[in-house]
Amino acid sequence: MAKHNLYAQLQVVCPSKTYPIYIGHDLLSDPILLCRPILGAQVLVVTNETIAPLYLNLLENAYSSKQCNVVILKDGEQHKNEHGLFTIYDALIEHHHQRDTTIVALGGGVVGDMAGFAASTYQRGVNYIQIPTTLLSQVDSSVGGKTAINHRLGKNMIGSFYQPTAVIIDLSTLKTLKNREFVSGLAEVIKYGLLQGGEFLHQLTEHLSKKTMDIVGSDFAALVSSCCQIKANFIQRDEKEQGCRALLNLGHTFAHALEAVTQYARWLHGEAVAIGLYCAALLSYQCHYLNRESLDLVELLLNNAGLPHKIPKDIDLDKLQAFMWHDKKIHRGALRFVLLKAPGDSFLDSHMTMDSVKHALHSAVKGEFNE
Amino acid sequence: MAKHNLYAQLQVVCPSKTYPIYIGHDLLSDPILLCRPILGAQVLVVTNETIAPLYLNLLENAYSSKQCNVVILKDGEQHKNEHGLFTIYDALIEHHHQRDTTIVALGGGVVGDMAGFAASTYQRGVNYIQIPTTLLSQVDSSVGGKTAINHRLGKNMIGSFYQPTAVIIDLSTLKTLKNREFVSGLAEVIKYGLLQGGEFLHQLTEHLSKKTMDIVGSDFAALVSSCCQIKANFIQRDEKEQGCRALLNLGHTFAHALEAVTQYARWLHGEAVAIGLYCAALLSYQCHYLNRESLDLVELLLNNAGLPHKIPKDIDLDKLQAFMWHDKKIHRGALRFVLLKAPGDSFLDSHMTMDSVKHALHSAVKGEFNE
Repeated sequence: MAKHNLYAQLQVVCPSKTYPIYIGHDLLSDPILLCRPILGAQVLVVTNETIAPLYLNLLENAYSSKQCNVVILKDGEQHKNEHGLFTIYDALIEHHHQRDTTIVALGGGVVGDMAGFAASTYQRGVNYIQIPTTLLSQVDSSVGGKTAINHRLGKNMIGSFYQPTAVIIDLSTLKTLKNREFVSGLAEVIKYGLLQGGEFLHQLTEHLSKKTMDIVGSDFAALVSSCCQIKANFIQRDEKEQGCRALLNLGHTFAHALEAVTQYARWLHGEAVAIGLYCAALLSYQCHYLNRESLDLVELLLNNAGLPHKIPKDIDLDKLQAFMWHDKKIHRGALRFVLLKAPGDSFLDSHMTMDSVKHALHSAVKGEFNE
Repeated sequence: MAKHNLYAQLQVVCPSKTYPIYIGHDLLSDPILLCRPILGAQVLVVTNETIAPLYLNLLENAYSSKQCNVVILKDGEQHKNEHGLFTIYDALIEHHHQRDTTIVALGGGVVGDMAGFAASTYQRGVNYIQIPTTLLSQVDSSVGGKTAINHRLGKNMIGSFYQPTAVIIDLSTLKTLKNREFVSGLAEVIKYGLLQGGEFLHQLTEHLSKKTMDIVGSDFAALVSSCCQIKANFIQRDEKEQGCRALLNLGHTFAHALEAVTQYARWLHGEAVAIGLYCAALLSYQCHYLNRESLDLVELLLNNAGLPHKIPKDIDLDKLQAFMWHDKKIHRGALRFVLLKAPGDSFLDSHMTMDSVKHALHSAVKGEFNE
């Protein structure tokens, strides 16, 4: 007698691991589903202060027949560092967790990245499952096995590629998500729309034009499922980002620099990605790859989602550009950008001049272009 | 015009990577060999205070046409922790090392483990090469891609499986190794003798009976080469220790507990392994797997090498046993031992009673058995 409503089950087939993504409503109310990916007798749930009061009891209930320990981290990107990581290691060792333990990441991208990195390195690797509770982590960060912590000098500088054994996406958890967080997640959805183009972009444009989203309905489940499938398609072809997977970084070279230059305090990740997507589209347009109509579509999608797209006037563009040179996406000495020829047609460019980037950044500042 | 004397080149073929092991004399005097595994324009040499004055200039000379930065760690197992690790990350980021950089580990097992772990996690993985300068790291830790740092509650608790792109074993560096360090390395050589048996064990027994070793000669190069080949054979069949690779842990469940209970301050790793090998042989004998003649051979080999084999009387055996339960080699709730039926015939046992282990430990204490 299933209490849940499973909308879709996808399969991610990587060289290192094959694992399921479950997508549906009220999945956290189903102990059988929650236990299915747990192979051993031990579980460590990693979550944060915001999520613990809401959903932790459901997991503790599901894992009541196992040794279940809990780590509750502080909420926020500024806590994605070695201190949080060692809180997880300490708990694992103090409670004698063995190689067949499973770490369960219950929360957003920060929790997932840290728990995943801990799993990839505790005793040289244990299993973990992702239970993302934010839209951003459901459509993006929980799938694909990228794990990381931040270094004080750069985001995600320390990490690994390490696939989970399952991803459980309970869309009902979005009911408790703050609106700003929900909107932030839409930036990654729009990224998938721009990468995929075609029918998916068409549906997304329709969705966003309505200005409200019914997260209970199957249309929304289909949207999330499509994002996961698009991402899975990239990962399956290139698990460790040696080729096409890098296209998933559309907008992110700009976004990471925007986050760093504001000490990760001003924007949510998705908000920075939104501005980054616009910058990438603008750069593509100014280099004559993308037409004006498509650039305007990017702006429209971001606007309809309630996301920012312009760089505020007070941002120091020289500093911003300096931060871009700290980014991981530097390849053989050249900054690498994902550019668009059209929705559904993106490519990697390593020949961009600093002048062109500067020009795009200046044009992306509020009041400088198209206003 | 090669200045070096290359004795052997082995090939390790793993699912994740294929890489060469070069074994010979004066290899560090050959810039071409040192540069061969470097693909990018950046190198970070990680070494320690003891090795830097001896060999660092040879590497800086070889990499003079590249961006070559250096990290000099403190020497010793007690420094194999997160502080040393972050010294490496800091240098990589401050000097803008990119994904195509190569980390070069110049030193013993501690340097190799830390540099390898940094390589496996910096920007989700960069290349590294191993240049081991101790006998222990030449015959054992530099091959196979096990990387780690210690946690205050347990040795090697945080790490990864991450293969190097090359291993360069310059036997001439052993000339500057302290005798106690050299002898310590022989413990792992004896481990390979016990695992392999046959002709290799026969030759090793001969070698050790002479009491001195000529490290310049080809016999010694053959010995090191055999150890690397034996290890490579295990790794190629089981890169991530899900099966037969665990046999390489012969003696190590005891050894790690002996090191932990003495705060890593009393013995070199090889010395603890020597006592561990004897304990494993004694346990095998007492459980009627190993005959008395083979047990005596283990003792003879360790004695001839100048290694300890008995547990000193002042060690608290209850504490020692408690530390064994913190070990990574616990499998489904049971401690897993590598036992011997005969030299060349080892197996994994997960059914050992605590009483049997206690009995073996008591018998291994000085003055308790065979004296």
